[in-house]
Amino acid sequence: MEEITSASNSRVKRLVLLRQKAKERRQSQSFVIEGERLVLDAPAEYLEEVYVTREAMEKAGERLAPFAGKLTLLSDEAMAKASDTMSPQGILAVARQPWYIAEDLLGRNREGEKKTPLLLILEDIQDPGNLGTMFRTAEAAGATGILMSRGTVDVFNPKTVRSTMSSIFRMPFVVEEDFHGALRDLQQRGIRLFAACLDESRSYELADGRGACGFLIGNEGNGLTKETIRIADERVHIPMEGRIESLNAAMSAGILMYEAARQRHSEAADAASSCLE
Amino acid sequence: MEEITSASNSRVKRLVLLRQKAKERRQSQSFVIEGERLVLDAPAEYLEEVYVTREAMEKAGERLAPFAGKLTLLSDEAMAKASDTMSPQGILAVARQPWYIAEDLLGRNREGEKKTPLLLILEDIQDPGNLGTMFRTAEAAGATGILMSRGTVDVFNPKTVRSTMSSIFRMPFVVEEDFHGALRDLQQRGIRLFAACLDESRSYELADGRGACGFLIGNEGNGLTKETIRIADERVHIPMEGRIESLNAAMSAGILMYEAARQRHSEAADAASSCLE
Repeated sequence: MEEITSASNSRVKRLVLLRQKAKERRQSQSFVIEGERLVLDAPAEYLEEVYVTREAMEKAGERLAPFAGKLTLLSDEAMAKASDTMSPQGILAVARQPWYIAEDLLGRNREGEKKTPLLLILEDIQDPGNLGTMFRTAEAAGATGILMSRGTVDVFNPKTVRSTMSSIFRMPFVVEEDFHGALRDLQQRGIRLFAACLDESRSYELADGRGACGFLIGNEGNGLTKETIRIADERVHIPMEGRIESLNAAMSAGILMYEAARQRHSEAADAASSCLE
Repeated sequence: MEEITSASNSRVKRLVLLRQKAKERRQSQSFVIEGERLVLDAPAEYLEEVYVTREAMEKAGERLAPFAGKLTLLSDEAMAKASDTMSPQGILAVARQPWYIAEDLLGRNREGEKKTPLLLILEDIQDPGNLGTMFRTAEAAGATGILMSRGTVDVFNPKTVRSTMSSIFRMPFVVEEDFHGALRDLQQRGIRLFAACLDESRSYELADGRGACGFLIGNEGNGLTKETIRIADERVHIPMEGRIESLNAAMSAGILMYEAARQRHSEAADAASSCLE
């Protein structure tokens, strides 16, 4: 197994660049994941290179077996340089970027099983942690895909990747240059779009999330743009008591997606709607 | 108006200590809030000292009127030292710590209006941002109070304070030395305790959040302790699809509280329950 001892080794420098520069990630179609959990949970076919310190290698033991042939030893000094964190866990990897087409967001998985589309649609989200939390929560809520505007923070930002808790390898996502065009395409495929906004909107629990639908969440400071709201089929808000002016964007996304999931899965909700109709 | 130009002024040093040391905050029963939004939104009676740069003072103008007599000018250099952020907004304040008794968590506000208790109960939450987000979301969801174990991260940590978005001045909270004793007290007051945990629990939407109740959320890594789960009246979980093992703790808290709020407020939910019963 190759061993890198110097922090100024060219491969270590490349790891730093991949961490820091979105452009570098885009050009190489790869990104860095870090930490025992994230690396060992990643699908082996996505991992191109795995870097470990001797200590981390001994600790991980057999669990590194799927990555044999991709392993490189790093000295503690080289790892400290390559790592994004103050106390590195001693394991990181270069992963290939997952790649999807719009069709993949609609819930047809590899086994051909079909789910009712439930999309999370993000316009210009800026906080990497928020974006990662949205991936994680979207997967948990059963969302079928995530569509993002070009102005959204880079998905492969190390902070985002960390917050996704591996969802980045499982949740289909697309970044769209023509965001509004993509929204109209979704509508033409029968997907109802709910815009999260406070003005002239009704309470989210009144929106029917059982059919094919997508929830539009806007930028943390400014919310959705007017044009995006105009395109949406319906406007919804999450009622807020007290003097709160807005919820955290990831929180809003989670509450909206889980309400749709609740409506879809809950026997009680089904009984209720047939009773009300 | 007094002006401090030196970053080594003793009052600047005290601001740094208040920011950095929980012990200092505890002893003086005060804490630091920072940023135009947070300072100007704070109830004036809580603010003991307000520090501004000349630039920030001119920008804020009349809005500083409620704090006349409490203002001190800081040079940019002194502000940079006192501030917790890389790009200070030029305004910060020392605030008195809000103080509550357990009774205050039960939803009787100062005007004597009574709400049905909805508590958020936190055991050993460690992430300051998570804790702050929980305050903000709890207020929005209409929670009546937050009870915390002694092992929970300090509420007055600058990161927590920032994430609360001023909720820290409005949401009643208590940190309990005898956490389990406090839980039993709540039960004796007729408050039903729901423990968020995956084992042997039922889906959260089946829990009746319309009555007086509290949701117990555990530490980010380890969840609730066994003893705490044992004390709770019921165990609930948020169903997760995909390969997600847990939701972010603040996200879980938000989804649980909002489901209770939905049950309480939604006409549809009321109609549904009478239809089902």
